[in-house]
Amino acid sequence: MKLATLKSAHRDGELIIVSSALSRAVKATDIAPTLQQALDQWHDCEKALTARFLALESNELSNAFAFDATKTTSPLPRAYQWADASAYVNHVELVRKSRGVEMPTSFWTDPLMYQGGSDSFIGPRDPILLADEAWGIDFEAEVAVITTDVPMGVTPEKAGQYIALVMLVNDVSLRNLAMNELGKGFGFFNCKPSSAFSPVAVTPASLGEAWDGKKIHLPIISHLNQKWFGNPNAGIDMTFDFPTLIAHAAKTRPLGAGTIIGSGTVSNSDRSFGSSCIVEKRMLETLADGKPSTEFMKFGDTIRIEMLDANNQSIFGAIDQEVMRYHPPA
Amino acid sequence: MKLATLKSAHRDGELIIVSSALSRAVKATDIAPTLQQALDQWHDCEKALTARFLALESNELSNAFAFDATKTTSPLPRAYQWADASAYVNHVELVRKSRGVEMPTSFWTDPLMYQGGSDSFIGPRDPILLADEAWGIDFEAEVAVITTDVPMGVTPEKAGQYIALVMLVNDVSLRNLAMNELGKGFGFFNCKPSSAFSPVAVTPASLGEAWDGKKIHLPIISHLNQKWFGNPNAGIDMTFDFPTLIAHAAKTRPLGAGTIIGSGTVSNSDRSFGSSCIVEKRMLETLADGKPSTEFMKFGDTIRIEMLDANNQSIFGAIDQEVMRYHPPA
Repeated sequence: MKLATLKSAHRDGELIIVSSALSRAVKATDIAPTLQQALDQWHDCEKALTARFLALESNELSNAFAFDATKTTSPLPRAYQWADASAYVNHVELVRKSRGVEMPTSFWTDPLMYQGGSDSFIGPRDPILLADEAWGIDFEAEVAVITTDVPMGVTPEKAGQYIALVMLVNDVSLRNLAMNELGKGFGFFNCKPSSAFSPVAVTPASLGEAWDGKKIHLPIISHLNQKWFGNPNAGIDMTFDFPTLIAHAAKTRPLGAGTIIGSGTVSNSDRSFGSSCIVEKRMLETLADGKPSTEFMKFGDTIRIEMLDANNQSIFGAIDQEVMRYHPPA
Repeated sequence: MKLATLKSAHRDGELIIVSSALSRAVKATDIAPTLQQALDQWHDCEKALTARFLALESNELSNAFAFDATKTTSPLPRAYQWADASAYVNHVELVRKSRGVEMPTSFWTDPLMYQGGSDSFIGPRDPILLADEAWGIDFEAEVAVITTDVPMGVTPEKAGQYIALVMLVNDVSLRNLAMNELGKGFGFFNCKPSSAFSPVAVTPASLGEAWDGKKIHLPIISHLNQKWFGNPNAGIDMTFDFPTLIAHAAKTRPLGAGTIIGSGTVSNSDRSFGSSCIVEKRMLETLADGKPSTEFMKFGDTIRIEMLDANNQSIFGAIDQEVMRYHPPA
């Protein structure tokens, strides 16, 4: 099953069901007005949503309409929790190496995770509005899951059952604000502006063999200004799988329905697959040439993030965004 | 005006209006079913809520009932954002001093703020359920504000107008998990379990002269196991006032309605007023005696946090919680 949220007068949009091919859609607001409300009652809603999805797939619905990803918000336009990991530890190791700092070996066993802002996500085709190019604007192509209610203290062995949906993320990052915030020790804040998620969120079951219950075994493809930037496989080099990340997040508190857990920048140690963020590429350039040559994003630059199935069909629809100048209130 | 949320079958509870004296209440669900929904339409709802509050105050409402703080959730049982600062910088300086580390002077001008988990707050009289006493269980008595929609890039001069409500917080903290997380650089996560907020949230206007538009000039009183622990004045030594904290949080993204911004542990440099968390007291003991003598909280320990007005009337109702052992799912 595939779900999306249409922009509407309501902050949380309108829940729709989308066909596998992303060509057609049908409203689901009578089952649950919003995706959050569906997740709040997932046990009750999932069956009804699935039944309608199957009817949509077999063209039985006269009220179906053409799906238009440009009219969607992020599947959850706002969420009660967005916790983002850095689960591809080879990427973290590279970051450290380029700074000449050794990575603690505990990073291979103890997940890195930060609490992100979840009150104001941007749509997958919305501009990335920022006031200053000098902040070092970067994208991060990631996979994320949305959970149902997760009990505190769940084990990694049992955490997988709470994964309701899978989607992609552009975790927009401001690299030149990050160093100051790292130094303060309170984690990322200003350096993490609003994130954007893929037009469509899908159930693990709909991913077929690409989903092994713990991670998704497909490349995540990034194009910066319409040029290939990377297509590392999200199933390779993921040191901490999603159930492990959920268990980590739930160590000392329960996770509410609609919690989003991100993988962090997808990164393969085989560098021929490119990168999922500019800062990684700059580090590779620094290690090779002594200095970076790829610039951070400027106003007018675009980033497209997508994942294709075995038949080259887009699974989640594309995140496709342009960086634009924001003018703060006078 | 004073608002609270009654526990109900719904995750977000039921919005009620509470009398100034915290003695009586009336339902407001016909105006807005939940506090979040009122905040989403604050411009429309505030007037209707205020009118009913005034009617409640003058005993005009036959459907009023006795207010019972034990039946409340936190005013927002879950929120889209909980961003907590450390605005009493003398406390931060003390933390550093006790570790023998100098505090960067920039900490006096650049606010410390971390993104907290906001998906699963606990009620003001709910137990603090935790699996392990060895985590170093501490409370933190703080003031917080709830905002309406805040535009990105708002200035501190204009940010005050977005403060809708004021309340108290117990920012439960696990001190023995904090050092490892500080070392990882991604901020606090496991060391910050679910927070609890005061039974009642109040409009700035209802605070009268105690509110100067930027901070609240009253002591926040903590009792640990029914013994006085501290009553530092929240209006003294607050290096960054609430408009400044809001502007900091909104530097690179807008803040959605219902954003909660916390002050961090209230702390006065005049130590005779005691402390608002155990770790501060332990640091003072370490500086005085070479080692701490106050232990962190154990199962069965209680913490009560309250603020009284000039007439010794409780403004927000008391946060009053017992630490209890949590048994994770098998």
